[in-house]
Formats: sequence, structure tokens, C-alpha cells
Amino acid sequence: MTQHYHYALAVQYAGGDFSGWQRQPDVATVQGALESALSSIANEAISLSSAGRTDAGVHATAQIAGFTSSVAPDQRNWRRALNALTVDSIRVTWVCQVAADFHPRYSATSRRYTYVFYDHQQDDPFVHHLAWCCEPLDADFMHRQAQQLLGEHDFSSFRGAGCQSLSPNRRVDQVWVYRRRGFVVMEIEANAFLLHMVRNIASALRDLGRGANEHDLSVLLEQRDRAAVGATAPPQGLYLSRVRYPDVELPPVSEAPAILLS
Amino acid sequence: MTQHYHYALAVQYAGGDFSGWQRQPDVATVQGALESALSSIANEAISLSSAGRTDAGVHATAQIAGFTSSVAPDQRNWRRALNALTVDSIRVTWVCQVAADFHPRYSATSRRYTYVFYDHQQDDPFVHHLAWCCEPLDADFMHRQAQQLLGEHDFSSFRGAGCQSLSPNRRVDQVWVYRRRGFVVMEIEANAFLLHMVRNIASALRDLGRGANEHDLSVLLEQRDRAAVGATAPPQGLYLSRVRYPDVELPPVSEAPAILLS
Repeated sequence: MTQHYHYALAVQYAGGDFSGWQRQPDVATVQGALESALSSIANEAISLSSAGRTDAGVHATAQIAGFTSSVAPDQRNWRRALNALTVDSIRVTWVCQVAADFHPRYSATSRRYTYVFYDHQQDDPFVHHLAWCCEPLDADFMHRQAQQLLGEHDFSSFRGAGCQSLSPNRRVDQVWVYRRRGFVVMEIEANAFLLHMVRNIASALRDLGRGANEHDLSVLLEQRDRAAVGATAPPQGLYLSRVRYPDVELPPVSEAPAILLS
Repeated sequence: MTQHYHYALAVQYAGGDFSGWQRQPDVATVQGALESALSSIANEAISLSSAGRTDAGVHATAQIAGFTSSVAPDQRNWRRALNALTVDSIRVTWVCQVAADFHPRYSATSRRYTYVFYDHQQDDPFVHHLAWCCEPLDADFMHRQAQQLLGEHDFSSFRGAGCQSLSPNRRVDQVWVYRRRGFVVMEIEANAFLLHMVRNIASALRDLGRGANEHDLSVLLEQRDRAAVGATAPPQGLYLSRVRYPDVELPPVSEAPAILLS
């Protein structure tokens, strides 16, 4: 019987170049690109599971994925080979061996997403694929409003149509809004998220931040009605930025795009 | 006889979304997108001339173009209409009326290009379309080396194959290399440039900056041989950033992408 090895990997990607994470025929997807490279490296069919299936256009600084292969860790430099075989808009940060019971989605206890607004200039051609370009925002006010999301709530007001989750309840553990140069950054961590939940929260916070909404965020939350919130914020502002596995020792990841940090 | 009005415009664009400035059938070009929008706004066929025809993938923060129309200045908000009718990767900064003898190319006395290196991390998916991601660079050494380009020289060592210029001589008026956060920025101003001249200079300076070349830039210059310099630097680091018209009063332009400045 062939021995099998279990691996986790961390990957960053610029979502604008892909029709989302999930493999689909005839379009570029992150899962498709990585599975194709892995299968070529290992000379066997390899499929990837992931912590979250990001939508078309959504970025990741720290997506976590898992795969199984008959190729042992000392037989390949997986990271280097993957980066050589994928396009520049994908970057594998690390690959490491994990226990057989590790699953990038089911072993995770919480996820963090980062939403980036650019309120320095409304229509900047060099930023529009990395952030939501919008009117000047009051980041301090957005931060105070966002604290009303903390704890367990029914998030129906922020739930996208077509969401297949059984319950509209989620537990938000942490949320921050802060300014960094021309950008306003929201980071939100929860046990899990509903479909489009972060982008709908971003939309409501941007309306509050530009003074276009007289209601507190808690009022929108209590309405439990998607119609209470405006159009879903665009995908190019959204980054999957952290997945927590408290019981597993994994290498560190970058939580923000370097272009914002450096 | 219909009266005609003469206009200049300044435009920024992210080159990665276009097959260069110059209109071509069946591909997205900046000239094609702007002419299509202008013709639709004016309800007449309008063609654009420009200060420089940037190559595929090359950006501009301050391309200058000119056009003629029977539509008077007070009949249209040209800037707003153009921005409404073009994609987010094009942004018209201003449109203004100019004298009939203004020509964006022939009236210009010098051009400035900016080349951006990102030496913070070699393969960052969020930067690779805005800069050349490379090894750590010594920006001070690159600046000192670059000063050897000042004045009039035969730039054959930096001249791309297929360049149709009659003379290989150009006059470099100013050149700076400096660090800004994770980026190393080269700005170079000359009366005009040969084909791929800035990208070939960027390539030579990067080799000097990472310690991969033992020859001074003046030695490469004196060889007057394209083989003296390595592969042309990629287009995604290059920005057309200023065109000088000393005899014409035009509104100000942004010389650097805001993502670097802000």
C-alpha cells in the first residue's frame, strides 16, 4: 500500500485575474491553477481543499489549502515548484506537512477578512483593482459603529441572496476600522461568515463613513432584512487575511497586502 | 463653415489592461477607448494625437493628448463625460481648450518617464502589475551611476531593435533614483527617447543596484552596442509621467501614481 503524505499550504492571490477560488471548466480559477501545478509536480492527480471559497475578484493574503500526495516532503520543494509553475498573481507562501486529520475548512475555528477602501481619490486607475475607491471616509466613526457587530447576532441584513447556510447567526469576535495612508482598512474576524456578509458590512460602514446613513449599524442589524443595506461592496476591496487553527502549529502568514504595509 | 475648437487632455491609465496606447483593430487600446468615448460625446468622428505612444503594458500618470471638435467648450463637460464612458483603468485628469497650433507631440520639448522597482519582496501578487518585483537594490549607488547618463550621448546600447529614429543621440536633462517605502523609483527626463530606452536603462541600473554588473554605466554607454545591456525591463514598471510644453499654459498633472505618493 502506497504511503500518503498530508500537506497544508498558504497562498496569496490577486483576485482580479481569476473567476474566484473554486475550479470551473474553461475559466481561470486559483484552485484550478494550483491543482494543475500540484498534479504536474507530483505526476499524479491532486485535488485541493481550502479554508474558504473566495468569490470572483476577491483576493487572499493568507488562504489556507490542503492536499494529499504519495510524494514525500523531502522529494520536492513544493513551494518553489508551485511558484515556478503558476502565474505572478499567485504566490505560495509556504507548504508544510500536517496530520492526516487536518482539514483547512473544518479544522478552522475562525476567519478574518480585510476590506480596503481608498478614499484619497475616487477614480485612481492604479488602485481600483486593489481597493474600493470612494468618497472621503470618517474612519474613527466607522470603527465605533463597527463595534456594534461584536458578539453573536442574526446577520440576515448582511446576508447575500442565494446563501445556503442553515442559520443566519454568526459570532463576530473582533472588528477594527483604521486609516493607513490613503486607505481605510476594516478587519473583521468571526467564527464563519454568511455569503457576501463582509462586503455588505463594508457597504453599510462606507455609507456611515461618508455621512450617507442616519441609522446606527445596530439598527440595520436588528432589521434582519437585506433591504436595509445598500448594494454589496465590490469584490476588489476584499482580502481573506487569516484563518485560525488553534490546535495546529503552522508557519506565520502575511495578513495584509505588502503594498499597504511597507 | 463650421467652427472648430482645439483641445488638450491629460490622462492616466493602468497599462496592464491595454495593448498599448495606439489604436489597433480588435484589441483594447487607450487611444481606441478615448476616441470611441469622444466620438460618442461629440456625435462626430474624433481622432486623438498624443505626446507619446506607450507600449503594451506601459502606464501613464500624465499622458497628454489633443483633439479637434465642432463642439464648443461650454457645450460639454468633456472630463466628466469621458470618465463616465471609459473603464476604471483610464482616468482623464483635465480637458482644456488650446490654440490651433498646439500639438501634443511636436509642441513638447521634453518627456519624463518614471520606472518603479519593488525590492521589498520578489513575487508579490498585489504589486507585480505596478512595478518590477526584484532583489534588494542599492538605490544610492543606482542614483550615482545614473548621473553618468546626463547630457547628449549616443544611446545605441539602450536602443531597442526596430527603433525607427534617424539618430541614436538623445539629451538626458535630469535623472534621479530614490527609495520610497518598498519601492525604488527612477525618474528620467530627456528631449526624447529611443525605443525601449528607459526600460533598457532600468535593466542596466537594476543589475548595478543588485551588484550583478562590474562595469560603470558610462562603460555600457560607450560600447554603443545593445548586447552590452541585459534583457529589456518589463513594461509594468514604466510610467509616462510628464511632458513639458514651456510655451503653453496647461493645468497641473500628477507625476507619480498616488499609491506610491500617499
